Amino acid sequence: MSGHRRLIVKNAVLDGEVVSLTALDGLITAIGPEAGSASSPGDAPATETFNAGGGILSPSLVNGHTHAAMTLFRGHGDDLPLMRWLQEAIWPVEAKLEPEDVYWGTRLACLEMIRSGTTGFWDMYWQSASTARAVEDAGLRAVIGPPLFDAPDKTFEERNSELEGWLDELAGFGGHISGAVAPHAIYTVGTASLEYAVGLAEERGLPIHIHLSETEGEVDDCVATHGMRPAAYLDSLDMLTPKTTLAHGVWLDREELELIADRGATVTTNPVANMKLAVDGVFPYPDAARAGVPVALGTDGAGSNNSLDLLTDLKVFALAQRHNAADAEAIPMSEAWAIATGQRSELIRSLGRPGLPASDPLTVGAPADFTVLDPKAPELSVGDLTSALVYAASGTVVKDTVVDGKVLMRNRQVEGHEEILTRARERAARLFS
Amino acid sequence: MSGHRRLIVKNAVLDGEVVSLTALDGLITAIGPEAGSASSPGDAPATETFNAGGGILSPSLVNGHTHAAMTLFRGHGDDLPLMRWLQEAIWPVEAKLEPEDVYWGTRLACLEMIRSGTTGFWDMYWQSASTARAVEDAGLRAVIGPPLFDAPDKTFEERNSELEGWLDELAGFGGHISGAVAPHAIYTVGTASLEYAVGLAEERGLPIHIHLSETEGEVDDCVATHGMRPAAYLDSLDMLTPKTTLAHGVWLDREELELIADRGATVTTNPVANMKLAVDGVFPYPDAARAGVPVALGTDGAGSNNSLDLLTDLKVFALAQRHNAADAEAIPMSEAWAIATGQRSELIRSLGRPGLPASDPLTVGAPADFTVLDPKAPELSVGDLTSALVYAASGTVVKDTVVDGKVLMRNRQVEGHEEILTRARERAARLFS
Repeated sequence: MSGHRRLIVKNAVLDGEVVSLTALDGLITAIGPEAGSASSPGDAPATETFNAGGGILSPSLVNGHTHAAMTLFRGHGDDLPLMRWLQEAIWPVEAKLEPEDVYWGTRLACLEMIRSGTTGFWDMYWQSASTARAVEDAGLRAVIGPPLFDAPDKTFEERNSELEGWLDELAGFGGHISGAVAPHAIYTVGTASLEYAVGLAEERGLPIHIHLSETEGEVDDCVATHGMRPAAYLDSLDMLTPKTTLAHGVWLDREELELIADRGATVTTNPVANMKLAVDGVFPYPDAARAGVPVALGTDGAGSNNSLDLLTDLKVFALAQRHNAADAEAIPMSEAWAIATGQRSELIRSLGRPGLPASDPLTVGAPADFTVLDPKAPELSVGDLTSALVYAASGTVVKDTVVDGKVLMRNRQVEGHEEILTRARERAARLFS
Repeated sequence: MSGHRRLIVKNAVLDGEVVSLTALDGLITAIGPEAGSASSPGDAPATETFNAGGGILSPSLVNGHTHAAMTLFRGHGDDLPLMRWLQEAIWPVEAKLEPEDVYWGTRLACLEMIRSGTTGFWDMYWQSASTARAVEDAGLRAVIGPPLFDAPDKTFEERNSELEGWLDELAGFGGHISGAVAPHAIYTVGTASLEYAVGLAEERGLPIHIHLSETEGEVDDCVATHGMRPAAYLDSLDMLTPKTTLAHGVWLDREELELIADRGATVTTNPVANMKLAVDGVFPYPDAARAGVPVALGTDGAGSNNSLDLLTDLKVFALAQRHNAADAEAIPMSEAWAIATGQRSELIRSLGRPGLPASDPLTVGAPADFTVLDPKAPELSVGDLTSALVYAASGTVVKDTVVDGKVLMRNRQVEGHEEILTRARERAARLFS
């Protein structure tokens, strides 16, 4: 044995043709009618072979913005407006969070993502090492940003030192995990801390993940305080780079979108959470597309969605754009699909591993992160596949999920499913007791 | 044997308690901890027993507006605006429809509805006897409205005589099927035909199913032609009664909603189709609720949705209402759930069988139309059940579907699944060849 790992997927369908796929050490080495017979490089690797049963090979989804552990808060305070939801339903419970809560909440999130074809996500939440441990145990990938907040109970130095400790912890995990510098938002983090964040990201070579322009009030406050709109403010701090992702962007105007495109930063839209929290707008995708902004799609946390099924969010994204523009041509379905699979942002799809092929996830050299779609899913039985994935499917059409050349779901069975539900229920019961 | 049929469901959960449910000849006769041991009335009925495996008993969903056979058109012309979609993608293909197309398109629709917990629907489509045959074979219930159109190729008498023939055919089906008088819309059916439809419905004791106020243009045209808005126009023809359902209602104003409430007519909202076709609005639910209008939820046809999973549409309904009102309190989740299960319109839930208990579908005397939810569905594992059904679930959380005391899906297996996909694919290939 060489220590290498090989995956061979047989009897899969791609573009109407029966193909095999092979992966070595987590990277795709061949896809095609003859790919399954590829010979070993050097010594015989440990080989896992699985028969896809005629299922369709598909790029996996990448969730560009979530707070995974918040699955435990699902179904609490749903009918409340944003501030009451935070103050009455969320913050009192977050104050009680223990590492095992974050771990099992994240395991539940990972279970749901695996079952709906998501293979990696961008997270922002407390107790990031517990999140990382859960993601590793689940087999997914994540870029995890421990939040930076200007909390009044700590000094500038204490907060920064705490954050650096968390990022050190994350750096100790394996290749599925990477860290991000995650200043929460411009209304919770002051200019000095944002400047510190830019420097820290630069120093450590990490991406930046920040909420931006979720509500109109945030924009108004920014203009009143800093004399410029949020994107210009971040740009004045050198925060807009190809390694920055801005979550929400509901209230970005055309000038800001031009600036963001020019700097190469990504906007991750979260249409379900925006509509649920009634922030009175949606990300102006047609303007962003015209400007050339890299765009990704996120669920936001299960506390404000309340699902992590990115395929249903993809439909809501496309519907919300058509509705908002009163234009059925507001977003071509092929673009919507590319966005949900991370193919419209190299940053988002790479999940902390720059330099990988991002524009076509099912290609030789790309990470072996993909799904096999159920050939018996009625939603996929008739008509164009991309259309079916955008407008007809939910996560249940995903039959198998593969990350890093390992099969995490096979015929809709995920290891540890029942234990995860039991433990998540126990943790939620404790929090809300 | 007496000719009676009994169903006994054991090991189900209702309100946190383990219960059994029994049904006799399609009506629920007992629900509770001891219900499974009920003795036989008279002779021994043919008894089907099934173990729900700890799944949660739930009211089933009722799809208030669809065109079932249009599953065959799914994924064609998705990125086109309404009129181009009709003219380029739909009408040329509809002209080629054969009875077997309608049959297998409807079987595919029924398969998807069974798999997502819908047990009955209100349909409007051509070749209604083929739809009826498919619904009977699938085991669902439907109120089917063969459309009345002022097509120029036939006289008033010819059209009416044809319609009466179709309604005669529907009357020959069993108790799962009933007919409706379905004038397509006020912009495709003139006043004389609408008056005829009112008389025909009255004479035959049938409900009326019509599209109303889908676009602003329809309202403007109505005002220009008839000097009043659409609801007032229908009222002037005596069409607004408790036996009428109005599909869409996007552009109804407050005065119209008061009038509709006063007459007891139902509005069936189809938020996904409205957003997808970008009709520039959504049904004003908060105003309708204040007025007291009976409300139902529909998917519309799979050509314009493109799914028949009413649980995902329920989420979009609630999201669209919160977004549209910019108010997180625009629709309480318990109301959204009641609407999707037909509990806010006696007409819609009764599915052509008036006099049944509509306000609580899981009660003695109600039709044995219900679902069992998967106790292992991660989406239902934490938090409030109603919240999970409205905001976290898609149809995949439904484990078993029961209609008329017969189990149509057991552990997500539906009889005939593969044949339906094969035949639907063949029919779609023929239509689009």
